Amino acid sequence: MYYIGVDIGGTNIEVGLTEKDGNLLFKKSVETEAEKGFDSIILKISDTITSLLKENRVDLQMVEGIGLGCPGSIDEKNGAVIFSNNIRMQNAPIVAALRSYIDKPVFVSNDANCAALGEMAAGRAKGLKNVVLVTLGTGVGGGVIIDGKVFGGNNGAGAELGHAVIRLGGIRCTCGRNGCWEAYASATALIALTKKEIALHPESAMKDAREINGRTAFEAAKKGDRAGIEIVDTYLNYVAEGIVNAINIFRPDIVLIGGGISNEGEYILSPIQDYVNQNCFGSQYLTPPKVELATLGNKAGIIGAAMLCAKVD
Amino acid sequence: MYYIGVDIGGTNIEVGLTEKDGNLLFKKSVETEAEKGFDSIILKISDTITSLLKENRVDLQMVEGIGLGCPGSIDEKNGAVIFSNNIRMQNAPIVAALRSYIDKPVFVSNDANCAALGEMAAGRAKGLKNVVLVTLGTGVGGGVIIDGKVFGGNNGAGAELGHAVIRLGGIRCTCGRNGCWEAYASATALIALTKKEIALHPESAMKDAREINGRTAFEAAKKGDRAGIEIVDTYLNYVAEGIVNAINIFRPDIVLIGGGISNEGEYILSPIQDYVNQNCFGSQYLTPPKVELATLGNKAGIIGAAMLCAKVD
Repeated sequence: MYYIGVDIGGTNIEVGLTEKDGNLLFKKSVETEAEKGFDSIILKISDTITSLLKENRVDLQMVEGIGLGCPGSIDEKNGAVIFSNNIRMQNAPIVAALRSYIDKPVFVSNDANCAALGEMAAGRAKGLKNVVLVTLGTGVGGGVIIDGKVFGGNNGAGAELGHAVIRLGGIRCTCGRNGCWEAYASATALIALTKKEIALHPESAMKDAREINGRTAFEAAKKGDRAGIEIVDTYLNYVAEGIVNAINIFRPDIVLIGGGISNEGEYILSPIQDYVNQNCFGSQYLTPPKVELATLGNKAGIIGAAMLCAKVD
Repeated sequence: MYYIGVDIGGTNIEVGLTEKDGNLLFKKSVETEAEKGFDSIILKISDTITSLLKENRVDLQMVEGIGLGCPGSIDEKNGAVIFSNNIRMQNAPIVAALRSYIDKPVFVSNDANCAALGEMAAGRAKGLKNVVLVTLGTGVGGGVIIDGKVFGGNNGAGAELGHAVIRLGGIRCTCGRNGCWEAYASATALIALTKKEIALHPESAMKDAREINGRTAFEAAKKGDRAGIEIVDTYLNYVAEGIVNAINIFRPDIVLIGGGISNEGEYILSPIQDYVNQNCFGSQYLTPPKVELATLGNKAGIIGAAMLCAKVD
């Protein structure tokens, strides 16, 4: 028997088929196109599941359940997205909607919680008891494991580390507040910063890039481009500042970084670790936690979503 | 049989005798004088315990244990203060030191954790499962109850809500970082803000105050003094901003405010609740938690510290 995990991101929806221990067998990706609305997203999920199974000749009868990982505040019990700014859902009965297409048990949880669950099932957090996972993607998600259990906040509505303000009165966040960590440390924020800096530095080779994305500044920095280096430094300081906050609050054994930006790998770890070592509370007296990459990369979300189905066993 | 609870603050050390259910019978206060160092603090605690017992004709034999609540990062297992900026201790073996004066079981935990424990034993958090307690005193402490248990962070070194940055590059905090919530929302920060504003507003009646303390601006504001009103507004916004951060991370059933500033009572609750209602994540879709006063006031810390002794039963 298999599980299906669905990781609903602001840019892509990833659908995967896993074994019951979290081993990912096949996956398939489709654009989210959040602007087309809730019904379109549900139909896409359903169609992608169907075609993934068909392409790999797996009968739907072999699937025990479907788990959905979704950004935002989730009402796990009632299977609804209470509020998600990145995929534009409010009070959306996502479980019931998907079940109207596919008659299987369906579960939903916050996407960063799923990623933490995935890392715990089959990744870097396996065997660890206190973990903070930070996902740097369209938004900034926080998945927290306390004493071996995913901490979703009361009602699964907490652990919104991305929506803690790090700069009072700062950049407007999609959640309506000003200065949220997400408005500084997400890939979206990095892209905005890159565009702003390119306009200020016409000498930078970045101005010739065909498209500005989350990799543009990193690629330029690696080639020695000064504006690129400045952007990366500033951005990683924002990332690290929020990580230090999370450490002071949760004091985990380890901090894992996932999401699209984590593809930069070791290049981002060393400056973040230095910042953490220098800045976390009582760092002269308490060994600061290690900052590492989530080993499942962006598969953690799919695997963790699939592991939601373990509830039925 | 009784417990003794000791709440070690930056300004005062409070010692209390409680029954085993947390009922506070007698208490006594003495100035901390942190600048005199560790040995002086231990001697003061010991002397105050002795005189409290003597004044109330309680034999030391009737005392089952002593609990210490201390600001900063605590190694509960080894009975040591790892790091506390407010009472200037580093790697201080506080349990062993006190036991060299009084031969009783001694326990230590973070002061804000103790306050949360006190509110859970005998105060407003009785029966609640998810609580954030914020103490606004010399520093800003955070006590977090998750699912009915005090969350001390891994090793009791976490839940340092006061040392999460709310203004990048902002006011220097005693912990060494810039912009910590504590540097804006503590009574110390309020006093600094009050002094600064008095210098800018010579028309304010506050300039005639004999001593500037945490009540000065509140008293002026209540009399309609414009500078006083401005200070209180600014200060309560700082307090509320950090509370919203804590709500987005922990999504508790209730937020309790304790510490010296909580003596302002209802006067501070309504503006903070308004700010929370407007700013917490998904507030249009999720009912924001209520913000209330810790009902034990500054006794919560003593009672909670005493309740640490319940471990021996």
